[in-house]
Amino acid sequence: MAAPGFGRYDRDSLEFARVLAFTDGVFAIAITLLVVGIEVPSIPDTDSVRELANELNDQTGSFVSFFISFAVIGRYWLAHHTFVSQLRGMDRRLIGLNLLYLAFIAFLPFPTSLLGNFFENPLSIALYAVAVAAVSGMEVVLFRHAYRAGLLAQEVPAVVYRWGMLMSLSPVVFFLLSIPAAFVNTSLAVALWLLGVPFQLLANRWKPKDADKYLIGG
Amino acid sequence: MAAPGFGRYDRDSLEFARVLAFTDGVFAIAITLLVVGIEVPSIPDTDSVRELANELNDQTGSFVSFFISFAVIGRYWLAHHTFVSQLRGMDRRLIGLNLLYLAFIAFLPFPTSLLGNFFENPLSIALYAVAVAAVSGMEVVLFRHAYRAGLLAQEVPAVVYRWGMLMSLSPVVFFLLSIPAAFVNTSLAVALWLLGVPFQLLANRWKPKDADKYLIGG
Amino acid sequence: MAAPGFGRYDRDSLEFARVLAFTDGVFAIAITLLVVGIEVPSIPDTDSVRELANELNDQTGSFVSFFISFAVIGRYWLAHHTFVSQLRGMDRRLIGLNLLYLAFIAFLPFPTSLLGNFFENPLSIALYAVAVAAVSGMEVVLFRHAYRAGLLAQEVPAVVYRWGMLMSLSPVVFFLLSIPAAFVNTSLAVALWLLGVPFQLLANRWKPKDADKYLIGG
Amino acid sequence: MAAPGFGRYDRDSLEFARVLAFTDGVFAIAITLLVVGIEVPSIPDTDSVRELANELNDQTGSFVSFFISFAVIGRYWLAHHTFVSQLRGMDRRLIGLNLLYLAFIAFLPFPTSLLGNFFENPLSIALYAVAVAAVSGMEVVLFRHAYRAGLLAQEVPAVVYRWGMLMSLSPVVFFLLSIPAAFVNTSLAVALWLLGVPFQLLANRWKPKDADKYLIGG
Repeated sequence: MAAPGFGRYDRDSLEFARVLAFTDGVFAIAITLLVVGIEVPSIPDTDSVRELANELNDQTGSFVSFFISFAVIGRYWLAHHTFVSQLRGMDRRLIGLNLLYLAFIAFLPFPTSLLGNFFENPLSIALYAVAVAAVSGMEVVLFRHAYRAGLLAQEVPAVVYRWGMLMSLSPVVFFLLSIPAAFVNTSLAVALWLLGVPFQLLANRWKPKDADKYLIGG
Repeated sequence: MAAPGFGRYDRDSLEFARVLAFTDGVFAIAITLLVVGIEVPSIPDTDSVRELANELNDQTGSFVSFFISFAVIGRYWLAHHTFVSQLRGMDRRLIGLNLLYLAFIAFLPFPTSLLGNFFENPLSIALYAVAVAAVSGMEVVLFRHAYRAGLLAQEVPAVVYRWGMLMSLSPVVFFLLSIPAAFVNTSLAVALWLLGVPFQLLANRWKPKDADKYLIGG
Repeated sequence: MAAPGFGRYDRDSLEFARVLAFTDGVFAIAITLLVVGIEVPSIPDTDSVRELANELNDQTGSFVSFFISFAVIGRYWLAHHTFVSQLRGMDRRLIGLNLLYLAFIAFLPFPTSLLGNFFENPLSIALYAVAVAAVSGMEVVLFRHAYRAGLLAQEVPAVVYRWGMLMSLSPVVFFLLSIPAAFVNTSLAVALWLLGVPFQLLANRWKPKDADKYLIGG
Repeated sequence: MAAPGFGRYDRDSLEFARVLAFTDGVFAIAITLLVVGIEVPSIPDTDSVRELANELNDQTGSFVSFFISFAVIGRYWLAHHTFVSQLRGMDRRLIGLNLLYLAFIAFLPFPTSLLGNFFENPLSIALYAVAVAAVSGMEVVLFRHAYRAGLLAQEVPAVVYRWGMLMSLSPVVFFLLSIPAAFVNTSLAVALWLLGVPFQLLANRWKPKDADKYLIGG
């Protein structure tokens, strides 16, 4: 392992741990704040099952968007976890880029609430897609910087690196494609989001041998 | 101790610690967000003791549900703490299942607020019971996976494993039973929740010898 | 150092660290949630300095109660920090008591908001005093259990123990005394809270020699 | 390294780590709470793109202030991170001062929301500037105490110390200057905030040699 240069924090250092504590804090709060976006209904007759059922039924969008966003943020947290498990250290630039990445994670509860309230509105779907695509884009930037700055614990072969980039970029593509789709038909846009899942499973077949040892996300 | 295989994070690893940091973060936020569900009343004469007392009196349900949910989430945190203290490592599947478990923990502040506002409504009681039963169900799933995938630090005898499963499953039963009960009588449903406590104390008498060394929850 | 018994988590253990992570999480969230209690005013002419100044002026109580509560929660965090620095381990009972202690910490943002909105109302002052007294009372319970169960790292002499209990109990006394005082005159109650500070400074003079080596809070 | 005195917590101690965990928690929550300040609009026709676009357009101030505040809090976190990486330990006074520093960090979401709602109001701009200047002022106080109490890991030469103080003080100056400027012209005030960036880049040229090894912020 190379000696850490100036402004470079080793995997064992307090500073490395602190970046992760802060990162996990932002993830945990963003994912838990999602629930705040679900409003408690108010009904005239507080004991009426039917009235409450109607109100909750109107909020279906909020429940669906809570669980979609939990899955989305959870998936990014898993990918970040895998990414960090491959690092031998961090430099200041990576810490700065990670902060920008976290800005988009911390922003996600807003488009989630918007989606919950306007589940059929093309604009709220488009904004949600932009926000998620931005996070995936930053994931690519983080991995690219770590690769180029020699922060990965093992030498990653070029073929594996390119495949990893492709895997991280593919959600960007699906989410950006869903933006024009939302203005044609909102269900089409959501279908494109879900299409990303079988695509990733399919793409796993073309995976370079031993890629698992090095790759982010997936 | 077996050598950790691929995608398996040892108890001493940064990755193991990070999953716990994220988990504790979600627990801490979910339990602290409960207080946000208690609305500050607004009264015309801000200095009137009687008006404020009346308003706070109307909110009794909110206070009761805050403390019930604090006890419920706190109990799950204790059980998770005991569970983790028995692990020698985690695999990716356990991390994924843990994330799903956390989704239900993070959701709890919503049924809690609902219960606080509609304390006599069978539907809010039923929804609360479903949410809590889901968490207990996931607790069973986590323990089962850890047992089968050989992630426990010690070999657990089959009799102890079955007893542990029973203990984790019993709250699922009590909470699911309380759902139809709520539509008959809301107090009956709450009584069923409380009945779980003496049942667990009673069940402790049939506990297999030395079970304490291995078991989750309890 | 004694060998940790069953259900006893040593200072170096992952379990000990996890209790602290959870505790610090609850403290950090409770202290940061206080700001959510300060409402952003709405005014007809958004660019008018005078209107905004008037609105903010009406919210003086919110600002004052934010800083009082930050100081109160911060002081309890410091005391908890000192307390933990004296422990050689935790048992399950201490973890359970700590959870109850945290329930009162997590509740504090509510009486704080109440106080911010009803700064002249005897009832909101009384409720705030009850909440703070409960936290101090739990602090006493934690220290007492640690002392009796032999969880302290060093043998504490009886005279030092009694003095430490007195110091932790004194805020309970001042806050409980302020409850009837609030119904006579709200300023009198707040004066009693502030009186606790010079009292603690004064009491420091009677401190047993070397007490600093062992004591909580102060 | 000097032996830690009484009430002095070494870099390797649990207590040192706990202060950081609490600090990172407050930072993570404050930065993630910013999003709560962005209200989800309500429109009569929930599926209308135009109505939603109009509403979101009216909220431009909220989005801009979210990203400004994320950058501001992120920059302070980075500076705190650098500061802590230079400490060999903490004393109680530093922990107390750090708590006061965190009070101002935790307060930032309020002026941020205010700014988001009243982006053209001189008073909200002035309050935001006061809040940020207070954080920078506390940064100076922390660094000064660490320097004087011998808590820095390396002996910092006087010339480097003075330059570091200047760098931390410069945002205080720019933000305080922006207060009277806001009452003349709100754009002028924001321009002054942004002017701090090129100033810091320029000031980096006059940096004493090897200052990077010792300095906070920058």
